[in-house]
Amino acid sequence: MSYSKFESHMKKIADVGFAMAVLSWDQETYMPEKGADFRAQQLSTLSGVYHKLFTEDELGKLLSDLSADASLNEQQKKNISLTLESYQKQKKFTTEFVELMSKTVSECFQAWQSAKEKNDFSVYQPKLEKLVELKKQECELLGYEGHPYNAQLNEYEKGTTTADIEKLFEEVRKELVPFVKKIKEAQQVDDALFYRDYPKDKQWDFGIELLKQMGFDFTSGRQDISSHPFTTSFNPYDVRVTTRVNEKDLSEMIWSCIHEGGHGLYEQGLPAGQYGLPCGEAVSLGIHESQSRLWENNVGRSMAYWKKNFNLAKKYFPEQLQQDTAEGFYKAMNKVEPSLIRTSADELTYHFHIMIRFEIEKALFENKLKVSDLPAYWNAKYKEYLGIDVPTDTKGVLQDIHWSHGSFGYFPTYSIGSFYAAQFFDQAKKEIPGLVQQIENGDLHSLLNWLRERIHRHGRFYTASELCEKITGEKLNFSHFMNYAREKYSAIYGLK
Amino acid sequence: MSYSKFESHMKKIADVGFAMAVLSWDQETYMPEKGADFRAQQLSTLSGVYHKLFTEDELGKLLSDLSADASLNEQQKKNISLTLESYQKQKKFTTEFVELMSKTVSECFQAWQSAKEKNDFSVYQPKLEKLVELKKQECELLGYEGHPYNAQLNEYEKGTTTADIEKLFEEVRKELVPFVKKIKEAQQVDDALFYRDYPKDKQWDFGIELLKQMGFDFTSGRQDISSHPFTTSFNPYDVRVTTRVNEKDLSEMIWSCIHEGGHGLYEQGLPAGQYGLPCGEAVSLGIHESQSRLWENNVGRSMAYWKKNFNLAKKYFPEQLQQDTAEGFYKAMNKVEPSLIRTSADELTYHFHIMIRFEIEKALFENKLKVSDLPAYWNAKYKEYLGIDVPTDTKGVLQDIHWSHGSFGYFPTYSIGSFYAAQFFDQAKKEIPGLVQQIENGDLHSLLNWLRERIHRHGRFYTASELCEKITGEKLNFSHFMNYAREKYSAIYGLK
Repeated sequence: MSYSKFESHMKKIADVGFAMAVLSWDQETYMPEKGADFRAQQLSTLSGVYHKLFTEDELGKLLSDLSADASLNEQQKKNISLTLESYQKQKKFTTEFVELMSKTVSECFQAWQSAKEKNDFSVYQPKLEKLVELKKQECELLGYEGHPYNAQLNEYEKGTTTADIEKLFEEVRKELVPFVKKIKEAQQVDDALFYRDYPKDKQWDFGIELLKQMGFDFTSGRQDISSHPFTTSFNPYDVRVTTRVNEKDLSEMIWSCIHEGGHGLYEQGLPAGQYGLPCGEAVSLGIHESQSRLWENNVGRSMAYWKKNFNLAKKYFPEQLQQDTAEGFYKAMNKVEPSLIRTSADELTYHFHIMIRFEIEKALFENKLKVSDLPAYWNAKYKEYLGIDVPTDTKGVLQDIHWSHGSFGYFPTYSIGSFYAAQFFDQAKKEIPGLVQQIENGDLHSLLNWLRERIHRHGRFYTASELCEKITGEKLNFSHFMNYAREKYSAIYGLK
Repeated sequence: MSYSKFESHMKKIADVGFAMAVLSWDQETYMPEKGADFRAQQLSTLSGVYHKLFTEDELGKLLSDLSADASLNEQQKKNISLTLESYQKQKKFTTEFVELMSKTVSECFQAWQSAKEKNDFSVYQPKLEKLVELKKQECELLGYEGHPYNAQLNEYEKGTTTADIEKLFEEVRKELVPFVKKIKEAQQVDDALFYRDYPKDKQWDFGIELLKQMGFDFTSGRQDISSHPFTTSFNPYDVRVTTRVNEKDLSEMIWSCIHEGGHGLYEQGLPAGQYGLPCGEAVSLGIHESQSRLWENNVGRSMAYWKKNFNLAKKYFPEQLQQDTAEGFYKAMNKVEPSLIRTSADELTYHFHIMIRFEIEKALFENKLKVSDLPAYWNAKYKEYLGIDVPTDTKGVLQDIHWSHGSFGYFPTYSIGSFYAAQFFDQAKKEIPGLVQQIENGDLHSLLNWLRERIHRHGRFYTASELCEKITGEKLNFSHFMNYAREKYSAIYGLK
């Protein structure tokens, strides 16, 4: 009885949370420009409603009663214990703080948009300063052990600490940096084929076909256009992915479609019966990213995937790709080259972009770096890690949306996700007979079923670390990614 | 101080209400089919949150204090008295009743969609029965004088009674019915030009150009596609109109664009500073409809409007309209012919469709008609009023969305709106020198400014009746419409 009361209360909270997600989705896809101010206010009000519902004493009472209820099954117990954690966390904030955070984020996001458009960091700076201060307060309210940045990391990748990330990037530095150096010294790959004229509507149709092939269910989801591709979900039967289409660069659409499609499949695979409950939610951002990266990199950037799909590409672009081969297409999409923009980076130097952001965020939360010094610091780091000069802030410190959303501690999950992806994909190859052959045939069903079974259906029942061990028999292990990278890129670049 | 407290509370309520509007808009435009169940639940939860916020004792206390506050200005006093009315109304419902209504509506809407698709009234019947019962309960909770249906009418057209509508339709019967009969006996108009092949994207671009010409601001609004065109607004800077495009019938798109554009202009013209307050809201559905009808009929179906715009139409459809003239185009769009579908009816027989719905609704609320008898009753009425046989329920009793939304008492506002429109347009012609000439030149600014000044900017400060008297010096007077109809159609049909 009281469990079902708990359930129905949680579903109401979820209803409000997902309503916010609808408003945010609309904001990024269809909202007319002048709608922003009122939308910010509407989101702020809903964030307050959400917080009030989550901190009701009645819920606290229910949780405390149910924590002692031995008759619950394991899933129910997990839902109670995880919700209790969230409840205690929400209780640390006042509704005023939550509303202020929401409003500050909206203002900061608008300032960022305008700053990026005008290439003028000074438009963004005061709003970001305000937001960073608020985020530091949030760390204190949340509490942390060790580094204050741990409080932020914990929001996205529960249990992962600043020290864990440092250790991981230590390995990246030791293994990946010299490997990329070797690639740079080898014969370079030509990727000119991506930069021909690719009409918008053909690209769109091609992307939809790729999503369908992956198993994305269009009766339970859709794709739209946004300037920053993202995935959001209002329930497992209504999952929204977005993409962008650049007529001068076919690759942007392909990677955003497959990447967001991977996120979307995870959301569609969550158990609908657990709507509103922890066991109906994704484990962590790292695990979420493992799903997008596995599809994008381990599947989408493989030779097997394009064996058949290159003909599909040629069906849409017969003239543009007339002279090309599947092998040439495959090599072009795996060109390794240090570059300015994270989202269009190759899958190796990508992690250098993340390391830079991690170091910046850490320094911000250690009070070692001021917001006003961000552009100069950014540019210096790009010179150091990627060897390139940043020509404008728009292509530098202003390129990412995350900080304007108040998302600090988010970036490292991109690297974590890629490394999980390699580890999971190694396991999938072991467990699914003829997987590579299936991919060559354009048959992606077994892989999706394996992910559904191993990952999606569990929701948050296991932590990221538990899930990884359960699936692969070991904790996150960077060597899977490194071995994958070494094997693949040695072949492409003719390295020994 | 307490007025500003009141204001900020009302803005929060509005934020929740408009969030619901965003979710509903998405439901009709972009939501994937399987998203419906959870969306219904989300809307139901928000309706409960809305109701709770609107019935908080603190708000009641504020309203009671402010009702006695002589220092308020006239607009503030109006906001207080109108909100007090709404507060007292909301207090008549429990949150459970509101949530149940929302859920029942969603279920009924889904059943209607499916029934219409399958041409199977029986799918819809049980859900509609449940909803009608709930609506009858609502009448009792709301209270009414005289006819129970007055409680429903009052929701959309405050102060208008069943007797008022009966009287109005008495005039329609006396004047319009014999006039339409005369038209039927005259030489008929040929409208074949509308039913050629008109490609979707050209139609879309043409519609956008018409909206821009009307003054619809696309930085504060947008147009999308939906199966039933509608207008919704999330604030005056974010107004959404929808249209539908039928490649075999150019007229559908034209009328839905101009009609919804008229609604949209009203929403964009409401005072943004009064967001969340009665003086930031539309007067009534009748007045809202007067805005759409004035643009659609009095402007859009006039010879003046097409004098220049016919060339615009030819720019988009040079081949289709090669042999046609502006006069032929004008006559075709004003063809009078009894037909099955309300939304595509001509502007005269349109009101017979409304009379039928009014009589049905009245009979339902008098318990003289059962839901199960609706199809037969509908078909008999169409035979009686329009002289036509209804071939299927899809083209009959299932054609309109309204009842599935629980909107009873809504239809009469369509006729009221048309009659207000004629009366307002007569006044505009008196007050704006050279208005018809301006319309001929494609210059619609003075008309929009006049509507902004006379109607939009006031919000709900005046009642419909007060507003009409203030603008035209008299109450709603059917003769304006009848004179307009007689003059226009006598010329088209060569009647004396």
